[in-house]
Amino acid sequence: MTDPRPGSAGLDLHLDWSGRPDSSGLAEALRTAIRDGRLAAGTRVPSTRALARDLGVARGTVTRAYTQLTAEGFLLSRQGAPTTVAERLRTGESSAPPARPAPHPPRWDFRPGRPDLSSFPRKDWLSAHRRIVRNMPAGDLDYGDPQGPLELREVLADYLRRSRAVDTAPDRLIVCNGYSEALSLLSRALLAQGTGSVDFEDPSLPQFRDIAASAGMRVRGVPVDDQGIEVQRLRSPVTVVTPAHQYPLGVTMRAQRRSALIRAARSAGGLIVEDDYDGEFRFDRRPVGSLQGMAPDVVIYAGTASKSLAPALRIAWLALPARLVEPVRAMKLPGGHGFDQLALAEMLRSGAYDQHVRRSRNTYRSRREQLLRALDGLRARHRLYPAGISAGLHLTLRLDPDGPGEREILTRARARAVELEALGPHWVNAQSRPPGVVIGYAAPAEHAFRPGLAALLDALDP
Amino acid sequence: MTDPRPGSAGLDLHLDWSGRPDSSGLAEALRTAIRDGRLAAGTRVPSTRALARDLGVARGTVTRAYTQLTAEGFLLSRQGAPTTVAERLRTGESSAPPARPAPHPPRWDFRPGRPDLSSFPRKDWLSAHRRIVRNMPAGDLDYGDPQGPLELREVLADYLRRSRAVDTAPDRLIVCNGYSEALSLLSRALLAQGTGSVDFEDPSLPQFRDIAASAGMRVRGVPVDDQGIEVQRLRSPVTVVTPAHQYPLGVTMRAQRRSALIRAARSAGGLIVEDDYDGEFRFDRRPVGSLQGMAPDVVIYAGTASKSLAPALRIAWLALPARLVEPVRAMKLPGGHGFDQLALAEMLRSGAYDQHVRRSRNTYRSRREQLLRALDGLRARHRLYPAGISAGLHLTLRLDPDGPGEREILTRARARAVELEALGPHWVNAQSRPPGVVIGYAAPAEHAFRPGLAALLDALDP
Repeated sequence: MTDPRPGSAGLDLHLDWSGRPDSSGLAEALRTAIRDGRLAAGTRVPSTRALARDLGVARGTVTRAYTQLTAEGFLLSRQGAPTTVAERLRTGESSAPPARPAPHPPRWDFRPGRPDLSSFPRKDWLSAHRRIVRNMPAGDLDYGDPQGPLELREVLADYLRRSRAVDTAPDRLIVCNGYSEALSLLSRALLAQGTGSVDFEDPSLPQFRDIAASAGMRVRGVPVDDQGIEVQRLRSPVTVVTPAHQYPLGVTMRAQRRSALIRAARSAGGLIVEDDYDGEFRFDRRPVGSLQGMAPDVVIYAGTASKSLAPALRIAWLALPARLVEPVRAMKLPGGHGFDQLALAEMLRSGAYDQHVRRSRNTYRSRREQLLRALDGLRARHRLYPAGISAGLHLTLRLDPDGPGEREILTRARARAVELEALGPHWVNAQSRPPGVVIGYAAPAEHAFRPGLAALLDALDP
Repeated sequence: MTDPRPGSAGLDLHLDWSGRPDSSGLAEALRTAIRDGRLAAGTRVPSTRALARDLGVARGTVTRAYTQLTAEGFLLSRQGAPTTVAERLRTGESSAPPARPAPHPPRWDFRPGRPDLSSFPRKDWLSAHRRIVRNMPAGDLDYGDPQGPLELREVLADYLRRSRAVDTAPDRLIVCNGYSEALSLLSRALLAQGTGSVDFEDPSLPQFRDIAASAGMRVRGVPVDDQGIEVQRLRSPVTVVTPAHQYPLGVTMRAQRRSALIRAARSAGGLIVEDDYDGEFRFDRRPVGSLQGMAPDVVIYAGTASKSLAPALRIAWLALPARLVEPVRAMKLPGGHGFDQLALAEMLRSGAYDQHVRRSRNTYRSRREQLLRALDGLRARHRLYPAGISAGLHLTLRLDPDGPGEREILTRARARAVELEALGPHWVNAQSRPPGVVIGYAAPAEHAFRPGLAALLDALDP
């Protein structure tokens, strides 16, 4: 065969053409590719001209092969339309397990931890992304800084200072693929420094405790009361807390508790991880500044775009004491970041991020008020008590210990196409587990909130 | 203070306003925010109306505070322009180390492992991304499948079958944040199954050996001759190879060696990792299909968009034997993926990806030919021998063992603003280290290739 080089425009195709160097040999190679599934049903085949040039053969050879395959039903050729692989042929991969179906969101989605994704600012995002991709220097397409792009860390440092009173600078920020990665990097860096155990709030999100545990940390639970974590019961050199809005109980950590926590960390040479997952969303008063701003020497601040924009972005950030930057950075894989981190920087720069946060805050405040008003009637009758301050994306509802349990409420909800979460799995220690459910009121689309709320109430009070 | 709730449009600002509830108290709070750097120089402050509404105070209170601060030089107010924080004020973060400067790409960039980033198809990418972000269901913004979005795995399976003869299916693909993550996940999954050591080709890319080593694997080097890896010298149950185009030597693995490698893996119950980093780029003939296509039961196929599109995307993929999907998937952090993976799926679907690969292939073929012609003159005079087949993005040049060494060539090159790499660091074992340099001819922008080539030749033959 003469110089069958690939090139030119069209589909990139691997052909096993080791048979006869004529149209019947080519037809056989194409037939095999179709049978093997390398050419999937519906795929547009290259034009005769392009394939002839690629293979270094006469165009007539390709035309004859295509005609033959069309006659055999392998290819579908219509006047004026591109030639495609015919539909009726199955690929050779039928032995593979069927593809996992995409999970369907529930009809009435009250799962906590999710913002209203239907209000994601697609237009603002698209124009931020367009400005980035049009204007970035080619160097931004290369392997990047594992700490995250400097452009993002610069605007993020400004944003965190003014919105959350975080004491940081671009060089002390590390951008991560979500808080999960942040926690995994931290756990591994601290473990490498000899810290073998970590205290989590009890209750807290079990997924995060699992991440610390699979990194090799020993995980312990420390109870939370209505003032925050019980500082005198701390046992590990590192404590992960949610001071602005405890997850899932919703309390805010009181000033005395904050000072005590910082004093404890300083005197023990320990560290505090401040998970500020929804710090932007405080409804009744100005948000309390970050714990980190009070003690940047012992507090690691963690924030995320998962609640303010969308979990799919997989963007979170750590503001670290200077001495921890290199150890944590060393745990990141080399490489860099995609375009989403640059687009987020542009959203912060243009003010579109702030605007979206404020719009969302107004929405969630109103939803929380509607939810509380609706629950008011159930308070006395069913002994259901909302917990926590006026903030965030979720409300924990304490259940009557003598009434229907978590499982029954969830079953009733599911029967009404309502999805919410049980408090149970959040507990670390078995001794005190008052029952409850966690309601994520941010998740429904705007049009679905009221009918969803009606369905939710019907599940609580059938 | 009356109900100072945040809300409305504009900047999101954390104020520590615990002093007097009048304009002088507010001015003091703003002054502190500016001094602390929470309000950075150049930042637009909220409009008087927005801030008054946020704080629940009369608009006049805010106007008076702003006037005071403008008089003091903290704020900059110009007719018709938004009020901003004045430039002359430094933030309180001056104790932080200066931000790491963005690395400058060298003037004549011949670093291997990089495509021509100036030819990145920005327009095609933007329209793929726009279609995705406009049309995706809100559920795509939620936490996603750690295996990668099904949309991408579907088109990727088709693409790999037809272009590289990979035997796979969407359920056996795992999308990763670059080949670095792929290798890290694989190493950890295999280690968890009791596999403690891995063979790499000697020479090979040291960064990848480091990733396996930091995951806890024992790393060994197995020599490569002009047929590929020396199969009879394998020592570990897992072997990482680059069969299409050995990195960095550029040889292709011969058919007998391929069969022997597969037989060895099968008889020892071992595994082969096929790093197909530049398999799309073969210039002299049709590319040889993947090793994986011959033995999908023992070969793990790894591909990447870093060479075909851009390293910044951080997208690579593993095609795994069915029994390894869950163990590797379990090593991924929960969460999902950003928009870039969905945009890549759209690029594959529309054919824009194939077109870009073919355009790039033509460019790189022509560059390689020019480079080889230019090197021809040095062959006899300086005993510099190009190694490897006509493929890929790099050429390894063997140096005269009695001539100037790697370090001298690199120093000479750097003096001419040319960046390339030494072969030295790629070796695992000390015994046989013939000197060489690795030239990445794909990296320069189109307009820079010829002048860069002249500078490179001048460094080799001053």
